[in-house]
Amino acid sequence: MLKEIKVIAFDADDTLWVNETYFREAEEKFAQLLSKYETKNKIDQELFKTEIKNLAIYGYGIKGFVLSMIECALELSNYKLPQEIIEKILNIGKEMLEKPIELIDGVEEVLKKVQGKYKLIVATKGDLLDQEKKLAKSNLLNYFHHIEVMSDKKEKDYLKLIQHLDVKPAEFLMIGNSLKSDVLPVLKIGSSAIHIPFHTTWIHEEISLEEQQKTAYNTLRNIKDLIALI
Amino acid sequence: MLKEIKVIAFDADDTLWVNETYFREAEEKFAQLLSKYETKNKIDQELFKTEIKNLAIYGYGIKGFVLSMIECALELSNYKLPQEIIEKILNIGKEMLEKPIELIDGVEEVLKKVQGKYKLIVATKGDLLDQEKKLAKSNLLNYFHHIEVMSDKKEKDYLKLIQHLDVKPAEFLMIGNSLKSDVLPVLKIGSSAIHIPFHTTWIHEEISLEEQQKTAYNTLRNIKDLIALI
Repeated sequence: MLKEIKVIAFDADDTLWVNETYFREAEEKFAQLLSKYETKNKIDQELFKTEIKNLAIYGYGIKGFVLSMIECALELSNYKLPQEIIEKILNIGKEMLEKPIELIDGVEEVLKKVQGKYKLIVATKGDLLDQEKKLAKSNLLNYFHHIEVMSDKKEKDYLKLIQHLDVKPAEFLMIGNSLKSDVLPVLKIGSSAIHIPFHTTWIHEEISLEEQQKTAYNTLRNIKDLIALI
Repeated sequence: MLKEIKVIAFDADDTLWVNETYFREAEEKFAQLLSKYETKNKIDQELFKTEIKNLAIYGYGIKGFVLSMIECALELSNYKLPQEIIEKILNIGKEMLEKPIELIDGVEEVLKKVQGKYKLIVATKGDLLDQEKKLAKSNLLNYFHHIEVMSDKKEKDYLKLIQHLDVKPAEFLMIGNSLKSDVLPVLKIGSSAIHIPFHTTWIHEEISLEEQQKTAYNTLRNIKDLIALI
């Protein structure tokens, strides 16, 4: 298996480093700030709805998340939200953008083993500047040829990516934590994909059990298991 | 001149299509919303200061601009800003993100002439999703090999770009409206650059007359003059 592979693309958030945990923490803080107006459950639901509504216009990443938090807070409070709380929401975003990088166990060991044998890239969604800064802070920059920040990770986006990389579908392997974004669309274009779950997944990235069972893919418990596989 | 060129990169905002005009309009609306608290002049100055302070964390683009407007509005109003005005600021941003594309005169004519002779790319700052959507809406997508959304346009960023494009400095030509971002750093790495001014320039992109006179570069009045040059 994987004999033809020329390019290995790694998802970044929750594959190379911890990320979703920080969004969960931010949602906790947001719910606390609004606890006067609604239950935690209702706040979570409304924030998610606002994010999904705005996804087509804001895209993925922290800045769009902050704008959605502000919009949601205004509505949930019936426009009675104290102005100081809006500043606190802005600060939640700034803190997220300045978080140190916590690498996922085994990542550097794996990159050391595969570097030189394949062209390695990072293929991630999110804010361009934020992702570039995280890669620089991670000290992993030198393992990768370059970073591709993608506006989405659907089939058409992967087709564009392999065209840009000038490789055939069979020569491309994607590794990531999201079945919906890193695995299923990649398999559909005839490339390879390996799934390494992270303990937390954003609801928007979840897929049905039925969808999961329809497709065959490799799942690893830890990125270190990759070494035996390739 | 320009015999060795293999890749021509076009800046997008205010080179291919109108953009800065919409930021000026947004600043006008923002100043009107805050007119109760400060003079237009003071509001402009404070917004600019907030944007520059946040540039390292938010980067370029509309989403960071909106977050800076909200921060600035809270401070200028001494946290007394009515909540409805914050919603209006969010809406200024959404309107900007949904603006139709107005191509700059001559752009398509030039692209038709040079396509096939060079590899054409778009090299732009800003929000990734926003720039990709603008390129799709512009109907210019088919002229370009791909779009490079850059987190900044300094010498190091152009070096990274030509390495990624796998060309030598002498084989790269950049065309854009900003001396600071599209011309001077490109000349410094030994590539070629052509300046086509737009009638409005963001203060942050302005450079001193002295800096301008230190460097030799081509300036064209209209992108159509490119045809005679290459």
